[in-house]
Amino acid sequence: MDAVRWTRTGTGQGMLPGKLRLIDQTRLPGELVYIETDDRDEIVDAIKRLVVRGAPAIGCAAALGLTAVCQHSGAKSATAFLAEVREHAAVIGAARPTAVNLAWAVNRCVRKLEAGAGDEGRGERVEGKGTGAAAVAALKDALAREALAILDEDMALCRAIGENGVALFEGRKGVGVLTHCNAGALATSDFGTALAPIYAAQERGLAPRVFADETRPLLQGARLTAWELHRAGVDVTLICDNMAAQVMREGRVQMVIVGADRIAANGDTANKIGTYGVAILARHHGIPFYVAAPYSTIDSALAQGSQIPIEQRAADEIRHGFGRLTAPADCKVYNPAFDVTPAELIAGIITERGILRPPYPETIREFMARCGG
Amino acid sequence: MDAVRWTRTGTGQGMLPGKLRLIDQTRLPGELVYIETDDRDEIVDAIKRLVVRGAPAIGCAAALGLTAVCQHSGAKSATAFLAEVREHAAVIGAARPTAVNLAWAVNRCVRKLEAGAGDEGRGERVEGKGTGAAAVAALKDALAREALAILDEDMALCRAIGENGVALFEGRKGVGVLTHCNAGALATSDFGTALAPIYAAQERGLAPRVFADETRPLLQGARLTAWELHRAGVDVTLICDNMAAQVMREGRVQMVIVGADRIAANGDTANKIGTYGVAILARHHGIPFYVAAPYSTIDSALAQGSQIPIEQRAADEIRHGFGRLTAPADCKVYNPAFDVTPAELIAGIITERGILRPPYPETIREFMARCGG
Repeated sequence: MDAVRWTRTGTGQGMLPGKLRLIDQTRLPGELVYIETDDRDEIVDAIKRLVVRGAPAIGCAAALGLTAVCQHSGAKSATAFLAEVREHAAVIGAARPTAVNLAWAVNRCVRKLEAGAGDEGRGERVEGKGTGAAAVAALKDALAREALAILDEDMALCRAIGENGVALFEGRKGVGVLTHCNAGALATSDFGTALAPIYAAQERGLAPRVFADETRPLLQGARLTAWELHRAGVDVTLICDNMAAQVMREGRVQMVIVGADRIAANGDTANKIGTYGVAILARHHGIPFYVAAPYSTIDSALAQGSQIPIEQRAADEIRHGFGRLTAPADCKVYNPAFDVTPAELIAGIITERGILRPPYPETIREFMARCGG
Repeated sequence: MDAVRWTRTGTGQGMLPGKLRLIDQTRLPGELVYIETDDRDEIVDAIKRLVVRGAPAIGCAAALGLTAVCQHSGAKSATAFLAEVREHAAVIGAARPTAVNLAWAVNRCVRKLEAGAGDEGRGERVEGKGTGAAAVAALKDALAREALAILDEDMALCRAIGENGVALFEGRKGVGVLTHCNAGALATSDFGTALAPIYAAQERGLAPRVFADETRPLLQGARLTAWELHRAGVDVTLICDNMAAQVMREGRVQMVIVGADRIAANGDTANKIGTYGVAILARHHGIPFYVAAPYSTIDSALAQGSQIPIEQRAADEIRHGFGRLTAPADCKVYNPAFDVTPAELIAGIITERGILRPPYPETIREFMARCGG
């Protein structure tokens, strides 16, 4: 799966020239269409329209997009080039206000260039490459390398989450796994987070059997999770959200794995609306409920989940979501985008550096200290 | 609200000739359209396609439908007519497998005719109306009267369920009630079952606040419950099924009331898929979970819920339900129409003759003995 990639458009040995390439996720599951672009407005529009979504994927797209735009700069000095990069970074970084990885990724690129250019006084000399055009060319290369590093790191951490999570399958074939929303390959640059252990199990021939909640109102489970697992040859069965309890009762599921948008210091986990209900159902049926997420999702500054603000979304996502009116047009709607699953319902948090187990206040504190986070 | 009615098409004083009239619930909430028919295939199709749905409404529709079809019989003797009635009853009664009221209603009609016809030896003489054509005409009238009796009884029992259920509101204003699917006026011939206590509370000025699960895949909660409550001026808020846990957690709900398709002798209750999950969530949050249903829904012959067959429905209800493809077209789907909520999760069963409380094997046995059922 290649939701976010860099495409070289030249014949030279370096990364440049090239373009940002995205799977247009607004066209799924009907059509698999790629968008290739080096145009800033198109990149901002793609992020706004959810052509690319999922925090890690947005971060990678923003960094590669910044590279694609800045390669065409006609700046004559490192200083002038840096000014242009900062301006493009500000615009791309503001494409969606709440996606923390978006600003994080473009800021990381800018800081890298500032550090490199700053070595030789006012940014006119760069890493021994001289001044003027040579310095600008060197900065363009450095930007491309940093953006690709962000992509490579994301791919590596997906793989690591998969490696750590696959231990839960303990060599058992045909384990039933229920997942909610999409924390898969389409939300990242590679294996996904919640789906990474499933892909890893599939690679090992363990043939996991996945039940994907369709995840109303925006149906990420139906449109994206079912699509990407099906395409990858994984045995996936789509269900409506309200069927999870019955599937559990029938013994079809031995494990739940979901992603996370934010994890508090005590282990409370914010994720797509419905996750909390799935966790209660899993507890009722004695099925372990796991969260899979990179350690960057843990926000040590938040003592507990009740401090996480819950975004309310538009009523028509529910009333008019399938291309036709499915409720009275003026009916009152409650549409929270996320919920918080309390730590006591979570059997483990699968990260790229291992599986965290309860009691979370302690294990998370130790883990963050070890990671320097 | 008039989901199921008999329309007289002649000018005489009796009920015949006439047609079964249904609100086409597949067209709601966009359009209020009625279907009038006396054609068996159309009636079976209407039941299958959920033009009419909800156990009591299906029972009424089946009995009135049987009447509408049989009125055109050219049988020359009571015996021949009864054979035709039995054949039509078998076909209509098999239109959907899980709804007990369907078979109950048509069988009640058949038994009534058999009892009447049987008085005079081999069914050739009927209630003093002589033989041949006169006997057949008398049986047609008897059939119409029995079907209308079923309709009238349903209307009376909806009111009685409302009266009994409203006691749970104890004069409190603004009580939050969560309901799933539609066991309202559209599921019956009048006030509904699960919604009857809500309508009764509304009539008493108690202004209940209802949260309606949209109820995927067919969205009866969004299309029907939200529509009929909104239309009746009840404060109703539509949510996706996966938001129920969050709504409970936020303290917005003090009670759950759902309908039932079939109740076993031990209290286990089959109802629309998702009901079981709601019951678990209610238990987790300490919220009482009630079933509202007429006593005819109790099937004493079934010792427990595991004996209730669960209908599986078409995959495209989930993949392609509302005018657009929302999942891969060839994706595997699991689509059970019902689930069974175990008796231990049910705080009470609101019937037209009072509220049954645990332990159900005992209270149901006494109740059925008292009702002669």
